[in-house]
Amino acid sequence: MGIHCHAAMKAKSALTPHSYEPAALGPWDMRVAITHCGICHSDIHLIDDDWGMSVYPLVPGHEIVGTVTARGHEVPDSLEGKRVGIGWQRSACLRCPSCLEGDEPSCPGQQPTCVGHPGGFAREIVADSRFAFEIPEGLPSEGAAPLLCGGATVYTPLRRYGVAPPDRVGVIGIGGLGHLALQFASAFGCEVTAFSSSADKEAEARSLGAHHFVPSGNADRMKGLAGSFDFIINTVFADLDWALYVSLLKPGGRLCFVGAPPGPVSIHAFPLIVGRKSICGSVIGSRHLIREMLEFAARHGITARTEALPLDAANEAIAKVRANRARYRMVLVNPRG
Amino acid sequence: MGIHCHAAMKAKSALTPHSYEPAALGPWDMRVAITHCGICHSDIHLIDDDWGMSVYPLVPGHEIVGTVTARGHEVPDSLEGKRVGIGWQRSACLRCPSCLEGDEPSCPGQQPTCVGHPGGFAREIVADSRFAFEIPEGLPSEGAAPLLCGGATVYTPLRRYGVAPPDRVGVIGIGGLGHLALQFASAFGCEVTAFSSSADKEAEARSLGAHHFVPSGNADRMKGLAGSFDFIINTVFADLDWALYVSLLKPGGRLCFVGAPPGPVSIHAFPLIVGRKSICGSVIGSRHLIREMLEFAARHGITARTEALPLDAANEAIAKVRANRARYRMVLVNPRG
Repeated sequence: MGIHCHAAMKAKSALTPHSYEPAALGPWDMRVAITHCGICHSDIHLIDDDWGMSVYPLVPGHEIVGTVTARGHEVPDSLEGKRVGIGWQRSACLRCPSCLEGDEPSCPGQQPTCVGHPGGFAREIVADSRFAFEIPEGLPSEGAAPLLCGGATVYTPLRRYGVAPPDRVGVIGIGGLGHLALQFASAFGCEVTAFSSSADKEAEARSLGAHHFVPSGNADRMKGLAGSFDFIINTVFADLDWALYVSLLKPGGRLCFVGAPPGPVSIHAFPLIVGRKSICGSVIGSRHLIREMLEFAARHGITARTEALPLDAANEAIAKVRANRARYRMVLVNPRG
Repeated sequence: MGIHCHAAMKAKSALTPHSYEPAALGPWDMRVAITHCGICHSDIHLIDDDWGMSVYPLVPGHEIVGTVTARGHEVPDSLEGKRVGIGWQRSACLRCPSCLEGDEPSCPGQQPTCVGHPGGFAREIVADSRFAFEIPEGLPSEGAAPLLCGGATVYTPLRRYGVAPPDRVGVIGIGGLGHLALQFASAFGCEVTAFSSSADKEAEARSLGAHHFVPSGNADRMKGLAGSFDFIINTVFADLDWALYVSLLKPGGRLCFVGAPPGPVSIHAFPLIVGRKSICGSVIGSRHLIREMLEFAARHGITARTEALPLDAANEAIAKVRANRARYRMVLVNPRG
C-alpha cells in the first residue's frame, strides 16, 4: 500500500492528497511512522519553486518526528521503535573534506529531504538512519519537530561563531526562527535583546528569554544602543537597515544572517575595518550540532511554541505561515496507530 | 631649539620644512631621535584631509623607528638609548573595556600619532613610552619601520581570525600592505595565493612567499578557484568584484578588508548563509599584537622591501606613493648624529 501524503503538483499550487510507493529500504535506511511535521518557510519556497530546484510532485516537510518501524540491515537494532527526528538534510557523501570535518551541510553531494524525495507532509517516510536523530526523552514531539530545522538553524551560528557568556546577543525578528533563537541565546547565558517591528510582542519576547525588547522602528532607542552587541542574528526575510545594525555591534562583533533578505546587503567596508566587525551567515546544522542541540534543548526545556493541525489540513496551515500568522510554528500531526 | 620636520600647512598641499617646540615630557613620555619613517597611504589621506579629521600644520608619519634620548620619570631605565618603533596609535585611555581587553585600537579615547600631534616626518618625536615598541635585534631599521603600521595591519587579522596551517590564504594586491601579508601568511605555514591586476608581479610575489599567483583579470582562472580559500585579505583601495571573491571562499571562509574600497561592498546574504562565510575587517593592531608581530618578523626574517630617501625629499617620496610607484614602501631617513 502506498504512503499517504500531501503534495504540490506544480509550482505555487495548493497541496493535494497523494500517495506514493516507498523505495525498498537500502542498508542504512529505515521506515519512520511520522507523528509530527513542522512547517518551515523553506517549505513555502520549495512549493513555489523560489529557488529553482523543486521537483514535482513535491511533498514538503523537513521538521519530522516519528517512530522507527522497519530497518535496513546496517541500521543498529537499538533504533527499533525509537522516536527519531529528521531535518532539512537527507544525506551527504560522507567522504569529502567537508563531511570528514563534520560539516555535512557543505558537502557538494548533500541532498535535501524534500527535493527529489518525498518529505514529511505524509504518514510515513523512508530516511537514511545516519541523518536521523534520536529525540531525547524530555522533549515533547510537537515542540521538538521544529527544532530539527528551525532549532538547528539558530543554534548552529551560536556555536560556530563562539557565542558565549557574557556576550550581548541581539535577535532580529520574533517568528519561527527568532522565538527559538531567543530561547537558545538566553540558555547560553547571554544577555539577550529582541528587536521586533511588532511592539506588541514584548511580553512574549520576555517570556522566551529576552532581557530587553527594542521596537526596531524606534530610531532613538536604536541609536542609543550603538556599539553594544557582540552578536546579532537576523531571522527575518526582509531588507532592513543593515548599516544601522552594524553600528550596534561592539568592536569584533558579528551580524549573522540565517534569514536571507531579498535584496543585497550593501555596507561600507570602513565600519567593518575600524570596528573589526563581521557580516556572516549560517545554514541548518551538522549532524553533531543537531544532536548536541537536541540534548541542550531537552536540558533547558527549549521547545517551539506551536499550533497543531491534522495533516489533512495542510493547506490551512500553509496559509497561516504565508500570512505570517503562525505563533510561532505550525505543526502537522497524524492520528495515532 | 625646535624640532625640524616637514608639514602640510593645509589640505592637499605639498609639505614644507617646518619646526616646532616639543611639549615638556610627561611622566610616560620619551624623546626619540628618529632614524627612519615609512610612508603609509594613510599619511596621504591625512595630508589631503580625506577623513575630515586632519589638523594643520600636519606632520605626517606613523611608521617610526628611532632611538630613545630622554625619558619622563615613569619610563623604565631599560629603555634609555634603545631602538624603538612607534605606529599609528599614539595613546589610549587604558581604562575602558576595550583597553582592559588588550584592544587599545577600539578605545573611544584612542589618539593617532599624527593627528593633533606632530608625526614622524621629523628629526625627533615626543612619544608615550607605553605605545612604543622595542625593535628586536635582528630587524634592520629601514625594513622594520613599515612594520609598525603596515605590518601590524596585515598581521592582526591573521591572528584575530585564527588563520593557521594548512589554511589557504589569498592576498589581493601586492603593494605596501600586500607584500607584507604574503610574507606573514607564508611564515604562518599557510598555502598562499597572490591576486594581482599586474601580471608582471608574479616573480616578485613568489619571492615574497606566494605559492601561487593569479592575475585577477583572468576570469577562467578565477572561476576555477571557486570554494578553495579559507581566508582572503584585501589590501587594495579599489572597488572589485567582491561577490566573485566570496565565491572563492570555502565553507566557513572569510573575506577580510584592511584596504577600504571607496564604494560600498554589496553582497547577497544567500552565499554567506549557504557557505557560512564572513565578510570582515581589521585595523592596525593592539600593543600585544604589535610586540608579537615584531618578534615574529625578526624570527622569520620578514621586513618591508623599501626605497629610502632623505627626510628633506619627503615630497618626492610622497609623489611616488601617490603614483603607486613605491616598491613597496618609501622610507624617509635622517642623517646620523
